[in-house]
Amino acid sequence: MSVKYTYPFGKGVFGTPGLTGDKIPEVLGNKGGRVAVMCNYNLPVPPGFTISTKVCDHYYAHDRTYPAELSAQVAEGLTVVEGLAGKQFGDPDHPLLVSVRSGARASMPGMMDTVLNVGLNDSTVDVIGRLTNDFRFAYDCYRRLIEMYGSVVLNVEGFQDILKNFKEKRGLTLDTDLTADNWREIVASYKYRVIDQTGKPFPQDPHEQLWGAIGAVFGSWMNPRAVTYRRIHTIPDSWGTAVTVQAMVFGNMGDDCATGVAFTRNPSTGAKEFYGEFLVNAQGEDVVAGIRTPLRFEDLKILMPKAYDELITTMTWLENHFRHMQDVEFTIERGKLYILQTRNGKRTAHAAIKIAVDLVSEGLISTKEEALMRIDATSLDQLFHAIIDPAYKGKPWIKGLPASPGAVHGHIFLNAEDVIKRASKTKKVILVREETCPEDIGGMHAAQGILTARGGMTSHAAVVARGMGKPCVAGASGLHVDYEGRKISVGQDVVDEDGEITIDGHSGNTYRGKIPTIEPTLPPEYHKLMTWVDGIRRLKVRANAETPADARKAREMGAEGIGLCRTEHMFFGDPNDPDNDRIVAIREMIMAESEAERRAALDKLLPMQRADFTELFEIMHGLPVTIRLLDPPLHEFLPKTDEEFAKLSQKIGKSVDAIRARARALHETNPMLGLRGVRLSIAFPEIVEMQARAIFEAAYEAKFSIYGADTIKSPLLEIMIPLVGFKTEFDITEKVIRNIADDIISAMYNKYGIQVNYAVGTMIELPRACAVAGKIAESAEFFSFGTNDLTQTALGISRDDAGTFLGTYVEKGIMLADPFVSIDVDGVGKLVQMAVADGRHTKPDLKIGVCGEHGGDPDSIKFFHGVGLDYVSCSPFRVPIARLAAAQAAISERNGRTK
Amino acid sequence: MSVKYTYPFGKGVFGTPGLTGDKIPEVLGNKGGRVAVMCNYNLPVPPGFTISTKVCDHYYAHDRTYPAELSAQVAEGLTVVEGLAGKQFGDPDHPLLVSVRSGARASMPGMMDTVLNVGLNDSTVDVIGRLTNDFRFAYDCYRRLIEMYGSVVLNVEGFQDILKNFKEKRGLTLDTDLTADNWREIVASYKYRVIDQTGKPFPQDPHEQLWGAIGAVFGSWMNPRAVTYRRIHTIPDSWGTAVTVQAMVFGNMGDDCATGVAFTRNPSTGAKEFYGEFLVNAQGEDVVAGIRTPLRFEDLKILMPKAYDELITTMTWLENHFRHMQDVEFTIERGKLYILQTRNGKRTAHAAIKIAVDLVSEGLISTKEEALMRIDATSLDQLFHAIIDPAYKGKPWIKGLPASPGAVHGHIFLNAEDVIKRASKTKKVILVREETCPEDIGGMHAAQGILTARGGMTSHAAVVARGMGKPCVAGASGLHVDYEGRKISVGQDVVDEDGEITIDGHSGNTYRGKIPTIEPTLPPEYHKLMTWVDGIRRLKVRANAETPADARKAREMGAEGIGLCRTEHMFFGDPNDPDNDRIVAIREMIMAESEAERRAALDKLLPMQRADFTELFEIMHGLPVTIRLLDPPLHEFLPKTDEEFAKLSQKIGKSVDAIRARARALHETNPMLGLRGVRLSIAFPEIVEMQARAIFEAAYEAKFSIYGADTIKSPLLEIMIPLVGFKTEFDITEKVIRNIADDIISAMYNKYGIQVNYAVGTMIELPRACAVAGKIAESAEFFSFGTNDLTQTALGISRDDAGTFLGTYVEKGIMLADPFVSIDVDGVGKLVQMAVADGRHTKPDLKIGVCGEHGGDPDSIKFFHGVGLDYVSCSPFRVPIARLAAAQAAISERNGRTK
Repeated sequence: MSVKYTYPFGKGVFGTPGLTGDKIPEVLGNKGGRVAVMCNYNLPVPPGFTISTKVCDHYYAHDRTYPAELSAQVAEGLTVVEGLAGKQFGDPDHPLLVSVRSGARASMPGMMDTVLNVGLNDSTVDVIGRLTNDFRFAYDCYRRLIEMYGSVVLNVEGFQDILKNFKEKRGLTLDTDLTADNWREIVASYKYRVIDQTGKPFPQDPHEQLWGAIGAVFGSWMNPRAVTYRRIHTIPDSWGTAVTVQAMVFGNMGDDCATGVAFTRNPSTGAKEFYGEFLVNAQGEDVVAGIRTPLRFEDLKILMPKAYDELITTMTWLENHFRHMQDVEFTIERGKLYILQTRNGKRTAHAAIKIAVDLVSEGLISTKEEALMRIDATSLDQLFHAIIDPAYKGKPWIKGLPASPGAVHGHIFLNAEDVIKRASKTKKVILVREETCPEDIGGMHAAQGILTARGGMTSHAAVVARGMGKPCVAGASGLHVDYEGRKISVGQDVVDEDGEITIDGHSGNTYRGKIPTIEPTLPPEYHKLMTWVDGIRRLKVRANAETPADARKAREMGAEGIGLCRTEHMFFGDPNDPDNDRIVAIREMIMAESEAERRAALDKLLPMQRADFTELFEIMHGLPVTIRLLDPPLHEFLPKTDEEFAKLSQKIGKSVDAIRARARALHETNPMLGLRGVRLSIAFPEIVEMQARAIFEAAYEAKFSIYGADTIKSPLLEIMIPLVGFKTEFDITEKVIRNIADDIISAMYNKYGIQVNYAVGTMIELPRACAVAGKIAESAEFFSFGTNDLTQTALGISRDDAGTFLGTYVEKGIMLADPFVSIDVDGVGKLVQMAVADGRHTKPDLKIGVCGEHGGDPDSIKFFHGVGLDYVSCSPFRVPIARLAAAQAAISERNGRTK
Repeated sequence: MSVKYTYPFGKGVFGTPGLTGDKIPEVLGNKGGRVAVMCNYNLPVPPGFTISTKVCDHYYAHDRTYPAELSAQVAEGLTVVEGLAGKQFGDPDHPLLVSVRSGARASMPGMMDTVLNVGLNDSTVDVIGRLTNDFRFAYDCYRRLIEMYGSVVLNVEGFQDILKNFKEKRGLTLDTDLTADNWREIVASYKYRVIDQTGKPFPQDPHEQLWGAIGAVFGSWMNPRAVTYRRIHTIPDSWGTAVTVQAMVFGNMGDDCATGVAFTRNPSTGAKEFYGEFLVNAQGEDVVAGIRTPLRFEDLKILMPKAYDELITTMTWLENHFRHMQDVEFTIERGKLYILQTRNGKRTAHAAIKIAVDLVSEGLISTKEEALMRIDATSLDQLFHAIIDPAYKGKPWIKGLPASPGAVHGHIFLNAEDVIKRASKTKKVILVREETCPEDIGGMHAAQGILTARGGMTSHAAVVARGMGKPCVAGASGLHVDYEGRKISVGQDVVDEDGEITIDGHSGNTYRGKIPTIEPTLPPEYHKLMTWVDGIRRLKVRANAETPADARKAREMGAEGIGLCRTEHMFFGDPNDPDNDRIVAIREMIMAESEAERRAALDKLLPMQRADFTELFEIMHGLPVTIRLLDPPLHEFLPKTDEEFAKLSQKIGKSVDAIRARARALHETNPMLGLRGVRLSIAFPEIVEMQARAIFEAAYEAKFSIYGADTIKSPLLEIMIPLVGFKTEFDITEKVIRNIADDIISAMYNKYGIQVNYAVGTMIELPRACAVAGKIAESAEFFSFGTNDLTQTALGISRDDAGTFLGTYVEKGIMLADPFVSIDVDGVGKLVQMAVADGRHTKPDLKIGVCGEHGGDPDSIKFFHGVGLDYVSCSPFRVPIARLAAAQAAISERNGRTK
């Protein structure tokens, strides 16, 4: 027997001969497989046949040709369809029209080509016009066939221009303004365009149309968009697509016809109720286009009770069978229900959580693990941040990157000071900057949201906003920020300072004016779900936090410690305090011309830093806190404006010229690769001494305040040295820390008999550190991967400058995703793996975590789970996402799946 | 029998019982071994004994204690020495004085401690005074003992202050101004200082002195300087030092005494002649101190013919025995010759080459390989560049880094334009800058040498100067360059513009005024030696060159091709041409606001670039030429001064504001990690198209001009894509190149039947590229490691900014050497190894080279040889160094040595 390439389906036809379980979507694709299964169970599906993915394999293995047997099998399939539909392909009286669609094992929405209305030609168009009593519709269908077929199969261009010119000449604006005669004229022009560009008339033979469409669908598997999409979603090219040829049915043949979509549960709330909308005497497209207002699903029961009952029965069956909330497309043609497609329904995070928990309680799915795998971890963001009201249909003003989730409106101000001045309980303010810098922290705190014109997903604005849990749209390129003119603009379109905008950090959209938003609530099932999550995951989840507010939020979100406390953030002080003396003290330290001067300035910083740590340790009691020593280049702390220079000069008693000279001396060509991290500690060990003293004195203060002096329970201190590349750098700095620590601890032990334990470890954030990790692990007690900087150095890409080319790189498929958002597994990941192996070779129980932005990204978390890290650390608001992603990684591993 | 720890030597004593070959220096150190061997052959050496390196092992393995047997063995050794010397240690009439010196297997000059005159005390000092009839000398010796012993053994400080105060009070300036009585007073003060600081008097017991000195020498093996030195020279700590205790002899007991140094060959020229100098009635120190003018060696024959004859016989024997030019220290005490020490002589590169070749011809050494291993590859620099006259004894004004070899004087100018204007055949000019940038190329060409205040060994100034073969001192920190005041200064010490200085790129010294220099010449033996070199090495050696002059120099220096042609250097144009339109054309290209504008500007650049390539290919005919596509960030080409902005505005017809805006838009926070390399090619493929067209059209032009149209011999073109991190980047750019190339080649083939072959490869200069090298090798036809950038990214260190901390890092031993000079084997080296293995796994015959600055560094070359690269490429002037280093690497490998 020859190989089976086509699988007919329809009433009374067993659609999946020789196929079971995962084999069904593998051979027939997801769409083709599900319609076949529905037919097996006698559900009302328009007949058709699916050409197997094996043909796709053959097509690409044999220079885009088909297997010899295919032609006969397609003819057989068509005969089955014609028999069931009672219509003939190309028949002058009862013409069968078919759709030709792609369908792969995985969903690839919009990536491949589809041709509808195949079988229409100059004569059948009028038959359809008569049968539907709607020539406008018939000619609209025909022009769509020519347009789709012409562009997809024949590579003819310019159809849209014809339509546009036609409408302009006649003063028409909407497609719905066109009459049947208008469309007839358009069809004529389209056909002329086809002859003009191909030298041949538009094919009138339905079989020629069918084969052309089949070839186009298979061909589209390898179109660049589809290839890129698969690379991003790691779908193998070898899977191939199936092609489903299906009889078309029409919901617009009269008032006993309808078309609609329906869900087995409420996709917004997850409530167990049928939900959907439909239009009487309409085509599927009309529902989507929003030209007519769809009716409520309940009304269908009244208008077409028989079809309604059959739909409800069918949907119930579908959910039970596929054990997942279903999203069904249906058409009612002359009172008869047809199910065109069923798939797992898209739903909000609220709905996803409720449905997952409910399906387990209802026994539809048997394990918590399966339930958890159904939820998109990233979507949990929606639970904690406002969203734009989904009912709002307006166009955004400008698009940027979705840098930090949440939707918010406010009055714009272009500098941090104004934001602080103008923001109040009654006045919401948005800080808009070209890009932000550490000095803007105060303004960012006071603002409701942040919008920047430059910078990527890990720009300063993005990182800080995520840390604060504040909406941020970053890198809105095309946005002009005019500081002097006190306004922002897109092209000619201006918003003056104090004008209102709305930003949506979920999508990256920015709108003019105040757009309705919906405030977040937690579904009651959330806590149950997170208990499951925590019972399954192996990775611990910590938060990156340094302020008391962040630390409290971190605990609330379920963080199991602080994985990164950036001590430099503490030096910027209270942003709302006009007499903020911290930044002055650190500037004085930087301006010092001798060690003695520097020590004097550090002495002023000590009590401030100690107080900060004390509060932090009190909040985090019982959990580990990883404190990173001063990391950024010193010039980040320097004044920038003339006013700031003058103020500093007055405060510290050095001339403006001297301060400027020092600022110039600190200038670096590539600050990312300059005097920072442990290099600062080597150059100015007195800074380390001050920080170590602040940490250990605070540890005792916090102990006393929490436990009193009689406890022996210890805070869990981890001191982290940044940017280590050489073991000796670590050793020298570690010694400075231990000298201070041991002095304080032994004094306290002598006095109170209380011990404080601590570990000294390092960030692994340089390729060299990965290469010599085994050596560094001889000294370091823990590793924490700083994957932001590791990505910058491994890829040689500055995240501050990547904006000019990173977008193009992702578009062209050079990178599968922004490597600052999702870890570059092949490159950076290989270095991480190398370092883990080498570090654990030296010290098998070495504690290893990650504290870069990737710690909150589900794909990256899966990778970190796989290479055996102990924990991830991320922004407080991403902790729930990380917890779920960690659980999913553990489940995937147990299931032996790679995706 | 107990372990043997001490080895006595002297007349009639067999000094090396149980030791042969390499075991001798291993156990006795280099110095101790050689005196023992001399004694074995009855040469006149003052008696002594050496304490074995095994004692050093024991000392450090057992908490700085000695083996139990040592005490008795030292006593035995001392008895042997006393017997041979006819003096007793501590004897009131014939006191034996000894020196206690360190001596490791490898030479570690000045790194460890030494104590002389051990055995002197309050009574023996007068005995020596009487015996030498020179109480001044005796008390000078005594105070030296107290000074050395006091500081080294007893950690007493402040001896120099005592001496300084003493002289100041009495208006004395030189030590030689002091009388015997003065020294006697000094001795008294010194002894008081010892009591004051240690609470005990200076030890009078010679045995206590001896053991104290032995302990200090062993202790000094682990002093930080010595540890760092060993790490830099990769000498294992485990080797340990020996301690040699030797009877002191005196060349200053009258006119029948003398002291001097002698060489078996002329250390400047290498001529086979005895060479040396001596002083009658003097101490060894006096020869070195230069207070008295030493006598010519020939005079010794007249004054002390018997001792002279014995010295000549001995030296001849020593050279024959050690098969190496010897540097001998001798003393004649009352007519009797003593050899104190013999070692392999330091010599100039000229001498080293002549001696190496001569020793082979004379049959003293049997293989060319052994001869080659005797030459310090780096010293070949001296053959091609002027040096400061060794007779000149003046102090430098300021010290910087020896960035490019050669000594030269000239008038200073602080900007490139002035240099170009003022330099002439009769007026030599030195360009002095804070640091240089690509725009200074013209001035650098016109200048005789370059001095910068900032930047390291791979700063722009250093790299370009080495490429030009011009002397350069870089990073002279402390030098203030005052552009506005038109002067440079060190502290208060000013040189105005047009004033003269001399720079020495061999040492990094800069002098005020015109200092005598010696012009380079090639020794006649050079070419013979290089024939040997080329017969032995496996690594090919290419040069980095883009100008015709550099390319010619490269061939002259023996380069086997161009390993790196930096096409961007061609865009700066002829620096001496005031109407240089290349920089204008490239600026126009950068300013373009559309692809069409950009293409128009590129069309202007095409003929210029084609002409450059044509000339280059003609010069390099028959050899491979690797051409790197445009690499640096575009803003490097932008105007900087107001004048330049105005000029460009006028030339290209865009407003100054528009140009400034574009320049601002191109500004990058970290340009090293920004839009450059292949990222430019992806963003602007039309630049690649222009460059590819220029290359291939030039290839045919060059072919015709060299061979005529009838040849089939092909230029060897290698086109190199910089900064590739992703295979797709390579693929996209390769396709652009091949489209152009194949068009041109097929047109020429159709017309003339002539083929041009080419390869497309990539720089490997990002850690990610190393991680995915196997993938990239699927497409790339060759790899060339860009170890400069790879070092920057792997270590996270910008070479432009490293100046502020790299020095400290090397000093503190965090890094063993400047990683931009000598490759960081553990870090960068590991990435290189990984990439080589992965690349060759994909493509076993993948051609791999290196074109970073490391390609000219002998230690790095050894590493590159070891990991199996095919070639190294370096500045033309370093080609001979690289050839020799490559040969030495091959020999070392064959000998199975690691060092």
